[in-house]
Amino acid sequence: MSDDTLSPGGPRVRAIPPGEDRERLLCPDCGYIAYQNPLIVVGSVATWEDGRILLCRRAIEPRKGFWTLPAGYMEERESTADGAAREAWEEARARIATGPLLAIYDIPRISQVQLIFHARLLSADIAAGPESEEVGLFAWEEIPWGELAFPTVHWALREHRERLGRGDCAPAVNPTPDALARWATML
Amino acid sequence: MSDDTLSPGGPRVRAIPPGEDRERLLCPDCGYIAYQNPLIVVGSVATWEDGRILLCRRAIEPRKGFWTLPAGYMEERESTADGAAREAWEEARARIATGPLLAIYDIPRISQVQLIFHARLLSADIAAGPESEEVGLFAWEEIPWGELAFPTVHWALREHRERLGRGDCAPAVNPTPDALARWATML
Repeated sequence: MSDDTLSPGGPRVRAIPPGEDRERLLCPDCGYIAYQNPLIVVGSVATWEDGRILLCRRAIEPRKGFWTLPAGYMEERESTADGAAREAWEEARARIATGPLLAIYDIPRISQVQLIFHARLLSADIAAGPESEEVGLFAWEEIPWGELAFPTVHWALREHRERLGRGDCAPAVNPTPDALARWATML
Repeated sequence: MSDDTLSPGGPRVRAIPPGEDRERLLCPDCGYIAYQNPLIVVGSVATWEDGRILLCRRAIEPRKGFWTLPAGYMEERESTADGAAREAWEEARARIATGPLLAIYDIPRISQVQLIFHARLLSADIAAGPESEEVGLFAWEEIPWGELAFPTVHWALREHRERLGRGDCAPAVNPTPDALARWATML
C-alpha cells in the first residue's frame, strides 16, 4: 500500500449499480461496491452459580466508563453462540457456556441486530480485557442501573430477570412502551 | 467512475491493520479496509388460513429451479421482521404479518445467520417476483421434499410443523444429528 492508505479513499459515492434496485456505496477509484449490511452484535447475560451477573465497565467509546454486558461484533466463520463466548473472554477473561437465546433486538437506526444469550460462567475468575476498565459480578440489587451503557443492556437484564426459573421461552424482542414504562418505575 | 469500474480492483490484500488482532481485507489502491462480517438472512414460513405454506421456486443461482422459503439478505435500516416481510413481497408478491422467531440457524462455513419467522399470509394472492420461477401454497403432504433448495428450508419446515398449536416456544437452532436422522426417516 502507498501513503494513500491514510487518504480519505474507499467507497464514498452513492449510485445504483446495474441490475440492482437501490443505491450502494461505490469507490470511484477502483469501482468496488461496498455492500453495507446490518451488523450482528453477539453477547450474553452470564451468571455465576449464586446468580450474580457479569458486567464490564467500558474502556472505549462510545459510553466509556459505563457498564455493559460482554458483547461485540460477530466475526466471520463463527457461530452466534461461539461469538458470544469469544466476547466474554475478550472483554472479561470469562469462560462461559452459552445457553438459549435470551433476546433479539433490532436497532434499525444503526442497522444492528443484537443477539443476547443466556450463559453460565464456568468460573468466577474474571479480569478486565483490553476494552474494559473493570469487570464485576453483580447481584440484582447491586446492578448500577444509572450507569448502564446502552438501553439494550437494561432490557436484557430485565428480560433475564423475568425468565428466571422458566423453561422453553421465546426470546425477548424490543420492549413495548408498556414494558419500558413498567421498568422505569422499578428503578 | 472511470473504466476501472470493471477492473479487478477493490479490497484484495489480507493484512492486520494497526491496533487490530486479525487479518482484514485491504484495498492496495485506496487503503480501504473491508470489514467482512457475517450476513443476516431473514425469511419466513408463511401460512395461509388453511395451513398451506408459501414456497418459491428459485429463478436464480444457487439452486435455480429448487423450492425455497421467501428469504434473503437483510438490508440496512430495517428490522429483521420488516426484512422478512420485504422478502416475501419481493419473491412472491405476498403480504405477510410476521409473528415470533421460528428459527435461528448458524452457518459459519459461509458466515451467515438465518432468522426465520413465523408469518401469516394476509391474502392468498401471490405471484412470482423477479427472483422466482413460480410460487405456490403447499399443504404438508404436497411439499416437494426432494426439490428443496437448502437444508435450512427443510429444517424450518420441520420445526414449523413441530410447533403447530404450541405457544411461547424457544426458536429452533441448528438440528441435532438425532433430529436430522429422525427427519430423514420421515421423508
